[in-house]
Amino acid sequence: MTQRIAVLGATGSIGDSTLSILADHPQHYQVYALSGHGRLDKLFELCQQFQPSRVAVPEDKVDEFASRLQQANLVCDVVGGQAGLDDIAADAEVDTVVAAIVGAAGLASTLTAAKAGKRILLANKEALVMAGSLMMQAVRDNGATLLPLDSEHNAIFQCLPAEVQQKNTHIHNACYGIKKLWLTASGGPFLHKSWEQMQAASVSEAVKHPNWSMGQKISVDSATMMNKGLELIEACHLFDLDESQINVVIHPQSIIHSMVEYCDGSFLAQMGSPDMRTPIAHALAYPNRISAGVKSLDLYQLSALEFIKPDLQKFACLKLAREAMQSGQAATIALNAANEVAVEAFIKEQVSLTDIALINGRVLDTMHQQDSVTSNKKDETDSFSGGIKTLEDILTIDKLARIQAQREVEKCRS
Amino acid sequence: MTQRIAVLGATGSIGDSTLSILADHPQHYQVYALSGHGRLDKLFELCQQFQPSRVAVPEDKVDEFASRLQQANLVCDVVGGQAGLDDIAADAEVDTVVAAIVGAAGLASTLTAAKAGKRILLANKEALVMAGSLMMQAVRDNGATLLPLDSEHNAIFQCLPAEVQQKNTHIHNACYGIKKLWLTASGGPFLHKSWEQMQAASVSEAVKHPNWSMGQKISVDSATMMNKGLELIEACHLFDLDESQINVVIHPQSIIHSMVEYCDGSFLAQMGSPDMRTPIAHALAYPNRISAGVKSLDLYQLSALEFIKPDLQKFACLKLAREAMQSGQAATIALNAANEVAVEAFIKEQVSLTDIALINGRVLDTMHQQDSVTSNKKDETDSFSGGIKTLEDILTIDKLARIQAQREVEKCRS
Repeated sequence: MTQRIAVLGATGSIGDSTLSILADHPQHYQVYALSGHGRLDKLFELCQQFQPSRVAVPEDKVDEFASRLQQANLVCDVVGGQAGLDDIAADAEVDTVVAAIVGAAGLASTLTAAKAGKRILLANKEALVMAGSLMMQAVRDNGATLLPLDSEHNAIFQCLPAEVQQKNTHIHNACYGIKKLWLTASGGPFLHKSWEQMQAASVSEAVKHPNWSMGQKISVDSATMMNKGLELIEACHLFDLDESQINVVIHPQSIIHSMVEYCDGSFLAQMGSPDMRTPIAHALAYPNRISAGVKSLDLYQLSALEFIKPDLQKFACLKLAREAMQSGQAATIALNAANEVAVEAFIKEQVSLTDIALINGRVLDTMHQQDSVTSNKKDETDSFSGGIKTLEDILTIDKLARIQAQREVEKCRS
Repeated sequence: MTQRIAVLGATGSIGDSTLSILADHPQHYQVYALSGHGRLDKLFELCQQFQPSRVAVPEDKVDEFASRLQQANLVCDVVGGQAGLDDIAADAEVDTVVAAIVGAAGLASTLTAAKAGKRILLANKEALVMAGSLMMQAVRDNGATLLPLDSEHNAIFQCLPAEVQQKNTHIHNACYGIKKLWLTASGGPFLHKSWEQMQAASVSEAVKHPNWSMGQKISVDSATMMNKGLELIEACHLFDLDESQINVVIHPQSIIHSMVEYCDGSFLAQMGSPDMRTPIAHALAYPNRISAGVKSLDLYQLSALEFIKPDLQKFACLKLAREAMQSGQAATIALNAANEVAVEAFIKEQVSLTDIALINGRVLDTMHQQDSVTSNKKDETDSFSGGIKTLEDILTIDKLARIQAQREVEKCRS
């Protein structure tokens, strides 16, 4: 039986990799729907190639895109905006939603897919960093299946017992003999440089990722290790663990993509070439396997694999992520928002690379103080984090944090 | 519910490790039976500690051991010799047989346990190297469960899909997306030495294993990599794969204990400290996990992990093992027997370390020639290997190969 797939965020890097695998296995998968935002020419080409039944574009591009498809004799339902994305994510014809829209924009449709009980291949980080509790609750309540595409989370998923995998990656503390998760990190371009060198780093130095080819924002996050901090938060939600049960280890070769440590002394690790097609193919085919078109890792040619403890002074963002996770969801939303603002300011050369952690930390402090002042309650369910019940609540905190972060950016500049 | 365990070969190193774990988890395991051969004082102490219901000793020691137990007020049924071992292995009260008797002596009782449909924790190599087909057939026909204790095979088992694990590790070619198995090898003490240095090596140089503390025979096998060759043969039977689907990679740090490569580019690896208690605890508790009393591997303190392609000129025994596996069971029986004779001669300083591969190779050649001459048939099922139907057939080939090997030893000495 073929799986009918909706690729939301089809024109980005995850979309590319996903569609290249789907194209290789037409007997197993049918591309039922696509969505795109900025690159509509590319989306049009994908429509020609895969002939989806539905496609989502920005609201104001629906008519134009529809007539373009019509001229090319392509029969395809074109929908627009957030409502269009949600409609596809909940479409009864869709088995699997690939949630590859970047940022907060992908949040709502991912949640919609969870509420519709879909099989979700999750690349959107914000769904868990900003809306982890809501998301996991929707997954559990509606019998959805959440399969992580991030190479680290996918690696951990592969190393978990089958029983845990089948329960929507819901581990519960200390069950199944799981002792710890180990997230691996490349350490980025400043691994062997000093804090002072980091402080003085240019944008082009910061975006040089040693192993993976990635966008600017995520490359900067890799340089500050904020990326690993966000992944830590994701992993806590995804695998229902406390942050203290997840270790981060720097592994500069990026061959081991993450590990699970068991109580009998076993570590299970997933390894491979740094190529997103492997985790995507895994998640598409799970619990089976399909070829991913990836060049086989040649063990005989590997350089030695190293493991290094992260320096939390230099990579202060990683420490902030742990603290935010301990504080609760409001803090992780604020951290994510502040970081986006700070990274943007760094890319615009308004602040230094080390200012990012500074700004993030100050925003967390301010939010925390405000929280203490305004809530002034002992009942946890009524506190800032406990009050988050809807996407709107989340977006409100996100907005507040961005404003606060922008203020901190200005302070750094002056 | 407690699992009732028979530890056959209780006084050896595997027995030690097994019993230390069983002692830590009395709520899960009951030591129902033990066996010992040479170290009966130690066996007596184990009987005092674990109070098994039954114990097997050599035939001529039954009366003496029984009266010793009686004097200590221990109620225990003492049985003797092969019949005694078989009786315990098939005992209806026994859930799990730990098959830890070394060498051909452990063959029959392991096969008996398989025929009785037991859960078998297999440490005895000969059960698969000498009797692989018989053994696996008995396991399948009688619903037995075979869980490997060798760190390499246990690692592979842990990295296989749950469905494969549950089918008595019966993979079938190319199913479940499994592309290759990767057996790791330490490379032994001659990894970075020349063939000439190997040729001139003393016994004490050859038995210095870098990572594992082991007996003399297995240390020499590690130095020649015959050990890995025998494990390759085991893995072929255990996982029902052709030798071409199993790669060997030298990994001098012995942290990764083996790997499974999947068609999507994923490698799953099991890692840990080199301590046999981890695989034993895994197999005891499977599909759950228990603590093994092993010191947790400190990833932050690990030295870099290397991977090296084995030099088949220097480690010719590894090549012989592949050739023997291709030839069939008679060849693997002969290789194992010849190797035991050759290693013994090396330990007695009668031949050099490199003579071991020479002797093994010549015995295989001779057996092969004899096979061609005597069988003179095209029907494969009637050939030498195909004719192996019973343990007696196996022991006959074993004996012939030993005689031939002894002849080759004499030639090397003259």
